[in-house]
Amino acid sequence: MECRSGFMLYFIGLGLYDEKDISLKGIEALKKVDDIYAEFYTANLFGTTLSAVEDIISKEISVLTREEVEEFNIPLNAAMKKDVAFLAAGDPLIATTHTDMMIEAKKWNIETRVIHSSSILSAAPGLAGLQAYKFGKVTTIPFTEENYFPHSPYHAIKANKKLKAHTLVLLDIRADADRYMTVNQGLEYLLKVEKELGEEIVTEDSLAVALARAGSIKPLVRADTVKKLIMEDFGGPLHCLIIPGDLHFMEAEYLVKICGAPENLLDEL
Amino acid sequence: MECRSGFMLYFIGLGLYDEKDISLKGIEALKKVDDIYAEFYTANLFGTTLSAVEDIISKEISVLTREEVEEFNIPLNAAMKKDVAFLAAGDPLIATTHTDMMIEAKKWNIETRVIHSSSILSAAPGLAGLQAYKFGKVTTIPFTEENYFPHSPYHAIKANKKLKAHTLVLLDIRADADRYMTVNQGLEYLLKVEKELGEEIVTEDSLAVALARAGSIKPLVRADTVKKLIMEDFGGPLHCLIIPGDLHFMEAEYLVKICGAPENLLDEL
Repeated sequence: MECRSGFMLYFIGLGLYDEKDISLKGIEALKKVDDIYAEFYTANLFGTTLSAVEDIISKEISVLTREEVEEFNIPLNAAMKKDVAFLAAGDPLIATTHTDMMIEAKKWNIETRVIHSSSILSAAPGLAGLQAYKFGKVTTIPFTEENYFPHSPYHAIKANKKLKAHTLVLLDIRADADRYMTVNQGLEYLLKVEKELGEEIVTEDSLAVALARAGSIKPLVRADTVKKLIMEDFGGPLHCLIIPGDLHFMEAEYLVKICGAPENLLDEL
Repeated sequence: MECRSGFMLYFIGLGLYDEKDISLKGIEALKKVDDIYAEFYTANLFGTTLSAVEDIISKEISVLTREEVEEFNIPLNAAMKKDVAFLAAGDPLIATTHTDMMIEAKKWNIETRVIHSSSILSAAPGLAGLQAYKFGKVTTIPFTEENYFPHSPYHAIKANKKLKAHTLVLLDIRADADRYMTVNQGLEYLLKVEKELGEEIVTEDSLAVALARAGSIKPLVRADTVKKLIMEDFGGPLHCLIIPGDLHFMEAEYLVKICGAPENLLDEL
């Protein structure tokens, strides 16, 4: 039995950094819908406030908790009775949980539309002067706990390095506790795993690229050895890391000339 | 000697599909600059015309050939004397050639700003219900010629499959000849390499995902065996392919329920 609600659920990406990273198409949809929900638990916009977004569209936005989205299905329930937009930072389908929601929407026979936006996945390579097609699997370093210290990000970097591929390393977000992992914490984690496993995948002398506030007017991009970077202050969130694999000369040149990597990087090529 | 031009060169992404995929930030910059150039040889917008973009900003845009951008450095030369925007489809730094241009700009002491946008790299996984962190290296199938028949895309898929990773397969663009590779041509190429190498990486019975017109209101997403897909018509450009690696149950469910993949995909998990 096909029985559609007749209403639409839009998944709309807010993009990378502030209220002006959303697309014109996204704004148009927001102006049209009845209800607007947003979640900031999988990611967040640091260059703006929610009210700046509300001002642009002259409408209110309800921010939902993970429980309200995933257990109480608030956006899905609303979309049975009206047109609804669901906003998330970055591209709206990058978080696995939103793809799941899309499947759920189809099961409920709710029509969906996706309005994409800028994402760290596509922005990071270019900002670091690295070629997008040379990146392997992305990985995320989680906040570790006494009984939770996974090695998987280290292994992901190892597998990519074997293929000479770069690794984009995302850093954990605990929006509910206002905790956003810094580059420094990420590197400390990697050195700690290195100390345990000793496979020389990420040592103090390895080259790494620190990226902060991608999408802002002046994102910070710094390339150097892990031991140098770990001592630096990269300012406010969001941070991420790139652990390069083999470098083309042009890539190395960018890291040296633009991102302050040591000159001898070029000698090795 | 630091001697900056005092002017700014903006790299601005037009996003995935039409004139409304650009961000508000991109539009603001376009309204501010003196000259606007665009290139459509690395990618293109299929859901719109150049004049639709011009209408939004009430300004003219000069479309440049590869030669004018890369040999005559028209945008860089202009940015020595005024504020300039350089537009490209998708995210503005995904094409390697634009990263090179960014290095060149820094050598010329021209200040640069990047305004990101939606890109197939971040949009494709979610549209196919596949998890972004399970994708390996992206690859591109080129138009082959009598003396040019590279095997590298096949090997890229093979390497990713070994890691159980999905592969995003971009398809060649020859904007000057108005040729945009179809899913069908891409699959034919893969079967041809399979016939030569016989490693059972992409056979007629392999699962593939066809994606067309990502970023449009109704992008087409179809999952099926290669032999089925190769007979179908996916409509206008742009097309791309995904060759899945190992599937989670949720991913397989999406491919079956939303993208029409054969039901037995779920039995195998």
